[in-house]
Amino acid sequence: MSRPKHKMALDVPLPERAALPEDMRQYFEVCDQKLGFVPNVLACYSFDAVKLRAFTAFYNDLMLAESELSKLEREMIAVVVSSANHCYYCLTAHGAAVRKLSGDPVLGELLVMNYRAAELTPRHRAMLDFAHELTVRPHEAGEPQRQALRAAGFSDRAIWDIASVAAFFNMSNRLAAAVDMQPNEEYHAQAREAGAAKAPGKGK
Amino acid sequence: MSRPKHKMALDVPLPERAALPEDMRQYFEVCDQKLGFVPNVLACYSFDAVKLRAFTAFYNDLMLAESELSKLEREMIAVVVSSANHCYYCLTAHGAAVRKLSGDPVLGELLVMNYRAAELTPRHRAMLDFAHELTVRPHEAGEPQRQALRAAGFSDRAIWDIASVAAFFNMSNRLAAAVDMQPNEEYHAQAREAGAAKAPGKGK
Amino acid sequence: MSRPKHKMALDVPLPERAALPEDMRQYFEVCDQKLGFVPNVLACYSFDAVKLRAFTAFYNDLMLAESELSKLEREMIAVVVSSANHCYYCLTAHGAAVRKLSGDPVLGELLVMNYRAAELTPRHRAMLDFAHELTVRPHEAGEPQRQALRAAGFSDRAIWDIASVAAFFNMSNRLAAAVDMQPNEEYHAQAREAGAAKAPGKGK
Amino acid sequence: MSRPKHKMALDVPLPERAALPEDMRQYFEVCDQKLGFVPNVLACYSFDAVKLRAFTAFYNDLMLAESELSKLEREMIAVVVSSANHCYYCLTAHGAAVRKLSGDPVLGELLVMNYRAAELTPRHRAMLDFAHELTVRPHEAGEPQRQALRAAGFSDRAIWDIASVAAFFNMSNRLAAAVDMQPNEEYHAQAREAGAAKAPGKGK
Amino acid sequence: MSRPKHKMALDVPLPERAALPEDMRQYFEVCDQKLGFVPNVLACYSFDAVKLRAFTAFYNDLMLAESELSKLEREMIAVVVSSANHCYYCLTAHGAAVRKLSGDPVLGELLVMNYRAAELTPRHRAMLDFAHELTVRPHEAGEPQRQALRAAGFSDRAIWDIASVAAFFNMSNRLAAAVDMQPNEEYHAQAREAGAAKAPGKGK
Amino acid sequence: MSRPKHKMALDVPLPERAALPEDMRQYFEVCDQKLGFVPNVLACYSFDAVKLRAFTAFYNDLMLAESELSKLEREMIAVVVSSANHCYYCLTAHGAAVRKLSGDPVLGELLVMNYRAAELTPRHRAMLDFAHELTVRPHEAGEPQRQALRAAGFSDRAIWDIASVAAFFNMSNRLAAAVDMQPNEEYHAQAREAGAAKAPGKGK
Repeated sequence: MSRPKHKMALDVPLPERAALPEDMRQYFEVCDQKLGFVPNVLACYSFDAVKLRAFTAFYNDLMLAESELSKLEREMIAVVVSSANHCYYCLTAHGAAVRKLSGDPVLGELLVMNYRAAELTPRHRAMLDFAHELTVRPHEAGEPQRQALRAAGFSDRAIWDIASVAAFFNMSNRLAAAVDMQPNEEYHAQAREAGAAKAPGKGK
Repeated sequence: MSRPKHKMALDVPLPERAALPEDMRQYFEVCDQKLGFVPNVLACYSFDAVKLRAFTAFYNDLMLAESELSKLEREMIAVVVSSANHCYYCLTAHGAAVRKLSGDPVLGELLVMNYRAAELTPRHRAMLDFAHELTVRPHEAGEPQRQALRAAGFSDRAIWDIASVAAFFNMSNRLAAAVDMQPNEEYHAQAREAGAAKAPGKGK
Repeated sequence: MSRPKHKMALDVPLPERAALPEDMRQYFEVCDQKLGFVPNVLACYSFDAVKLRAFTAFYNDLMLAESELSKLEREMIAVVVSSANHCYYCLTAHGAAVRKLSGDPVLGELLVMNYRAAELTPRHRAMLDFAHELTVRPHEAGEPQRQALRAAGFSDRAIWDIASVAAFFNMSNRLAAAVDMQPNEEYHAQAREAGAAKAPGKGK
Repeated sequence: MSRPKHKMALDVPLPERAALPEDMRQYFEVCDQKLGFVPNVLACYSFDAVKLRAFTAFYNDLMLAESELSKLEREMIAVVVSSANHCYYCLTAHGAAVRKLSGDPVLGELLVMNYRAAELTPRHRAMLDFAHELTVRPHEAGEPQRQALRAAGFSDRAIWDIASVAAFFNMSNRLAAAVDMQPNEEYHAQAREAGAAKAPGKGK
Repeated sequence: MSRPKHKMALDVPLPERAALPEDMRQYFEVCDQKLGFVPNVLACYSFDAVKLRAFTAFYNDLMLAESELSKLEREMIAVVVSSANHCYYCLTAHGAAVRKLSGDPVLGELLVMNYRAAELTPRHRAMLDFAHELTVRPHEAGEPQRQALRAAGFSDRAIWDIASVAAFFNMSNRLAAAVDMQPNEEYHAQAREAGAAKAPGKGK
Repeated sequence: MSRPKHKMALDVPLPERAALPEDMRQYFEVCDQKLGFVPNVLACYSFDAVKLRAFTAFYNDLMLAESELSKLEREMIAVVVSSANHCYYCLTAHGAAVRKLSGDPVLGELLVMNYRAAELTPRHRAMLDFAHELTVRPHEAGEPQRQALRAAGFSDRAIWDIASVAAFFNMSNRLAAAVDMQPNEEYHAQAREAGAAKAPGKGK
C-alpha cells in the first residue's frame, strides 16, 4: 500500500476518544454518525482541546454558515486552491465532497486536475479564477480582480466569503503538508457513481 | 455535466470508423476488445492516417516495449509529469492505468495529487523526482541528476527510458492542453477497488 | 496621503461599536485599553459576530497560548511569511509587534525586507527558512524539512506550532489582499526606538 | 574546446554503421548525402532499431509533411520552444535550420535569444507567442489562446500543427537535456552568410 | 542586535578616510555635512578610487540630474525594484529617502511592502508597474509596455529615465546581496514623522 | 530582414557625430578604429554627454581594469546573465566577444544557449553558477554562495568583481529590453571561425 499509516508525521501523542473532554467526545460521535468516521484533521488537532474547539468553530462557520455561496461552491474553491498547492489531504477530502454534493463524480476529478478543463458557468469560472490567482499570486490581488467577481454577479459580501474560503485552504494545505497529514481512507471510494446530489448546492 | 462533449476543441473533421484505412480500423477494433473503447487521443489523430500510425508506433514502443522499467513504472512517470503540468486528459487516462496495473487505487490518486505524499521505495522516489525536475526545470538537468538515478540502482539504459517517458508526456500534455482533448468517460470509474493488479509490473 | 481611507475595499457595512453584541463590545474595549485601538482586522470581521468570535478565538490561541515558541518568535514567523507574500496589512501590524517585543526596531525592518540579511541564531534561521519554504513551495514540504527543525532543537510539538503560525499568515495575507484591508495608522510609529523589550520573548 | 566529446552522457553502446539494419543504414546514407552528416539524435537512437524507426517516422511527418505551416515556420517554433527551455542541442540544430531556410542568419540568432526582439509579421508573432506560452504555462492553454491564432489567420487544422510542433520540442528538449545530447559540430558554421534561402518557406 | 557589524561580508580592506585621494576625501566630507554620514555603499567602493569615482558619477547623474522625473519619483522606483528583489540595503536607504522627500512616512513603508496597496496617481501606478515588470520579467518588455507609459503622460525621454533607474537598482540590489552590504544604521530612524517634505518632488 | 532598423525604440533624437563634444567624438573615433564601428549602446547614450561619459567610465573600469578575472571571464559572465534574461542586444555583442577572446566560437554559442552544457573548469562552473543564481534569485545570495566561490579558488576581491559584472548586466539587459536597443549588425558574423584567440584571457 502506498499510503503512510500515520495520521501525521509528528511525534505528538493523540488522545484516546475516552480521554477527550465531553464536548469534543460528543462532536466526534456526531462525525461518526454523519460521515462514518472522524476526519483525521480533527484527530490531529485533538492533542489540544482548545485548538480543536477553535479550529472546529472556525471551519464550521466558514463551510456551513448561511452564505450566497452554496456548500458545493465552497468545496469547489477548496479543491481548486488545493490543486494549485498539490495538497494530498485536502484534495482527497474535499474532492470527495465535490463528488458527493454535485452528484457529478467527474467534476471532482476535473477540479483536482485542472479546473480550466471543466465546462463551467461564467459565475463559477470567475469564482475559481479568483481563488486560483489569490493562491498563486496573492500580492497581485486588487480592484480589477474584485470587479471581475462583481461583473460575474457576486455581491461584495459574497466576495468576502470567496476570499475567506480560498484563504483558509491556503492555510490548511500548508499545515497538512508540513505535518504530512493523511486523509481518511474512506474518502477515496466515496461518491464515485454519478447520481442525484445528496445535498444539492444552491446557486450552482 | 461538467465535461465538454467534444473529443477536441478544434474544428477538424474526424472520420467515421468505416472510412479509416484497413490497418487503423483493425487497430481500433483491438482497442475496443482490450480496453472497451478507442482512446480519444487516437480518435483525434485519426484525421490523418500517417500521423495516427506514427503516433501509435512511437507510443507503443515507449510504453510497452521490453525495458528495465515495468509498465506500471512508466505509467507512474506519466502521471507525475502530467500532475506538474495539470493535464486533465493524461491524468485521467494514466491515473486509471496506475490504479489498474498496481491494484492500488490510492496510488493513482496520490500520484495525481502529489507524489511526495506517497510511501515510495527509494528507487521510485528517485525515478519520480527525476521526472518531475525534468518537467519543471529542464535546463537544469545534468550529471548530478543522472548520478542520483544510478545511485538508486538504474542502469544508463534505464535512464534513457525514464527520460523518454517523462519527455513524451511533456509533449502529450501540451498537445492535449492546446486542443482541449477530452479523455474517454470510461476511465473515471476504472479500477477504483483495491485488488490484485491485472498486470503485475515487474521491478516494483 | 498615500493610504486609502477605508478599512477594506468591500461594500459591507460595519456596525457601530454600540451595535455589537455585549461580549464583542467588551473585547473591543480591552483592545482599546491594551493597544490604544481596535485592530482593523477585527473591525472588518465585526459585520458578523459569529465570524468575529471564531476568528478571535482561533487567533488568540495561535499567538498567545503556551508554546515552546515565544510570542516574539511567532511574530517573527508572521512577518517572514507576510514578506514573501508582500502583505501590507500584516507586515505593518506584525512588523510593529516584532519591534515592540524584541526592543530591536531594526529586527522588524530586517524581517519585513529580507530575513536572510539578519544576524540570527541557527534556531531562528531554521525556523524562518521552514516558514518561508512552506509559504512559497508548500508542495515540497516533507521529512527533510522537519528533520532540519529537529536538528535545530525544536520538538515535534513545536514543529506543529511553527507550521500553524506560518500557515495562518498564508491565510490572513490572502484575505487582507483580497479585500484590501488597511492597517491601523498607529502601527507605523510604534516602537521605532531601540530599548528594552516590553514583553521579553522566551526562547530567543 | 568547450564541447564534450560524447554524443550523449549515457553509457549505452551505439552500433557501428555496418551493424545497423539495412533500412536504417540506407537512411543514414541519405543523411550523409543531404546534410553531410547523420544528426546525433539519430545516432543516439540507433542503439535500438525499433525506437530509431519510430522516432524518424514521427519526426519526418511532423517537420516535412504537407501543412499550412511552411518548413521554416516549423523550425521557427522549434527554436522558440528550445530557447524557453535553454536546450543546447535543439537550439544549435534548429537555429541552423532557420538560418538556412530563411536565408536570414540574424533571424536564427534572434529566435535563439528572444523572439520578441525580432521584427515579425502579426501571423508569426501570434504563432510564436502561442508556442512560448504552451511551453512555459501549459496548464493555462485554452479557448482564448486558440482564438488568438484564428484571429491571426490560422485554420483549426494549422493550430493542430503549431501545437504538435511546439509540443514535440518540449519532448526532445527534455530528452536532450536528460542525456546531455551533443549537436554535430557542423551546425555551428552553417548558413552564417545572408543570402537566398535554399528552401524558401511558403507562408512566410 | 540583529544586524551584522560589517560594512560588507568580503575580506577586502577598506582605507581610512585619511588615505583616500583628495577628491574622494572631500566628497566624503560633503556626505558627512549633507547626510550626517557616508553611505556604506561608498565606503565599500572606496577600496578602489577609480571604481568609487565611476560609481559616484554614474549614480549622481541618475538620481540628481535634471529629468522629467522628480527626485522623489526616482526614489519610488528604487524602492519598488528593491522590494521585488528583497534587497535589505536599498530598501533601508531608499525607503528613508522616500519618507524624507515625500514627507509621508507611510508611503515609504507602502512601497517597501507592496506598492499596489498604495493610493497612487495613474501616472505613478504606470511608472511603478513598468519598473516592477522590468525587474521580474525583463524579457517581456516591449512596445505595449512603452505605450502604457506614454498613455500615462510620460515622454520617450522620461521612459529612458524610468528604465535607467529601474535597471540601475537591479544592479545595485544584486551587488549588495552578493557582498552582504549593510546600510548605515542612521537610516532606520529617519523621517518617521509625517510633515512637510524637505525637498518637495515636482510632478508628484 | 528580421531586425528592426532603429538603434532604439524611443523617440529621443541622437546627435550627429559632428555635434558631439570633443572628447566623445574622439572616443567614437577610437571605437571606429578598434572595433570598426561605435557600439549602439554608446550611440543611444549620446543624447546626453554627461550620461555617455559616466556610462563609458563605469563600463570600461568594469570590463577592462586589472582584475583576477580575465577579460574573457568577464565576458563569459556577461553572456550567462544575458542568457537568463534573454537579452538580444547583450547576447549578440558579448557572445561575439566570447568567441573573439576565446578563439572558440562554440563557447560563445554554448553560453548564449545554456552554460551547463559546456565543458567548463570547476573554477568557471562555480563563477557562472554564482552569476546565474544572482540573476534569477538575488534575494537568496548569502555566505554559502560566497563560500562556493572561495572553494573554487577565488579571492574575496575577485568575488567583488564577479558580483559587479553579473550585477551590471542585470542593469544593461533591462535598459536594452526597455528601449528595444538593437545591436550593431557587425557582431553577428564576427569570430565564427575557430582559431587563436586575439586576446588570450589570463586565468582561463
